[in-house]
Amino acid sequence: MKDAKVRLYVDHPLGAGQSVPLDRDQAHYLFGVMRLTVGSSVLLFNGRDGEWRADVASAGKRAGELVCSEMTKPLHMPPDLWLVFAPIKKARTDFIVEKAAEMGAARIVPMQTEFTNSERVRQDRLQAHAVEAAEQCGGTFVPEVSDLQKFDRLLADWPADRRIMFCDEAEVGQATLDLASEGADSAGPWAIFIGPEGGFSDTERARLTSMKGTTTVSLGPRILRADTAAVAAMTLWQKTLGDWA
Amino acid sequence: MKDAKVRLYVDHPLGAGQSVPLDRDQAHYLFGVMRLTVGSSVLLFNGRDGEWRADVASAGKRAGELVCSEMTKPLHMPPDLWLVFAPIKKARTDFIVEKAAEMGAARIVPMQTEFTNSERVRQDRLQAHAVEAAEQCGGTFVPEVSDLQKFDRLLADWPADRRIMFCDEAEVGQATLDLASEGADSAGPWAIFIGPEGGFSDTERARLTSMKGTTTVSLGPRILRADTAAVAAMTLWQKTLGDWA
Repeated sequence: MKDAKVRLYVDHPLGAGQSVPLDRDQAHYLFGVMRLTVGSSVLLFNGRDGEWRADVASAGKRAGELVCSEMTKPLHMPPDLWLVFAPIKKARTDFIVEKAAEMGAARIVPMQTEFTNSERVRQDRLQAHAVEAAEQCGGTFVPEVSDLQKFDRLLADWPADRRIMFCDEAEVGQATLDLASEGADSAGPWAIFIGPEGGFSDTERARLTSMKGTTTVSLGPRILRADTAAVAAMTLWQKTLGDWA
Repeated sequence: MKDAKVRLYVDHPLGAGQSVPLDRDQAHYLFGVMRLTVGSSVLLFNGRDGEWRADVASAGKRAGELVCSEMTKPLHMPPDLWLVFAPIKKARTDFIVEKAAEMGAARIVPMQTEFTNSERVRQDRLQAHAVEAAEQCGGTFVPEVSDLQKFDRLLADWPADRRIMFCDEAEVGQATLDLASEGADSAGPWAIFIGPEGGFSDTERARLTSMKGTTTVSLGPRILRADTAAVAAMTLWQKTLGDWA
């Protein structure tokens, strides 16, 4: 059995003996770019059925077929953590989505705040970044990237049981709260809120801190860019309450 | 007194009444790009004397002069933490340097390992990224970026009192160590080691773990890219032993 070097997300059921057809792009990637041939092995995951080794059964320029042989990794669901962030410049927004997938967010929510410049995001492009990050980081799950949500609407419909870790720029220089000592160590749904450049508006800050399940957290004495803040906040959360604990 | 919107690093002494000459690039940026005029205020720092408000005394196309009025922030030295990393693709190496400066590294050390592709780095360009990150994040200190060091040479000359936080990819899936419970909560010099894509070689891993002051740390159950790992590792360190505590 050859060592599988390629790891690919497919939107198709996986299981022992399951055949997986390849579309044109996938065939081009596997056979044109990666030079795989019939008999080569790849690793597949679909976000639901774990990771499977599959062998190339047929290889063409525009199509192909893989057949699953054995499960190589069971499905590992991340904790129920959302990353809610205000989109910034294109490259950094891409990075935030990539980082959120690597760090084990269950859902990624772009949010339009008062100081957010972007009025729309390309959800399909961001979702593709999340898939690519999952392929890269060995995860078996792909977080869903939602469409851009308006801050007011998002909080108006907020699920009562989902706690909020509010990373408040205005807290810079104050001590970081210890999530665990805040009585936040119960399992359950959480969301991390990261503001835009310029931070949240006073109204937005008041709204966030008035929510019943909000814990305000400072991320150290320096101002972090949004992408840095997202990784730092997820590290604190995963280490204290998530699957790094 | 006008609100200073521009924050600038200068390699010049700062103090009350101190005159600071501007070179061509700085004059172009302040007067051409940012449209400042005589009487406008800026914030200056040089990595040694804290942050100072300074007023434009003369403004020209190729030169200019600022005069310091008052200190707005004392010098805040980060803890004595080095970030040692293996350079990767250009954009991601830039990101690692930027993130290290934001997260409060005292020194940034690019390192050539067995699986590192880069054989050289542009130290001057990376140093400029560290300066820019310090301008952006409100820090008063700029970490020094050293030249590319060979792994063997770096460890052969390693200072006996500098402890190592070794972020080992091979530890993925195991529990993260708690730095504090490792008896590592003494103040003192530390370095975080982040490997290249593909990780450290077996020889390098053995060398690192055999060092007297090494603590091996896992960064959760997913494989992180080097730039993500750098931020995550620095978050754990700053929160446990550094200036986030």
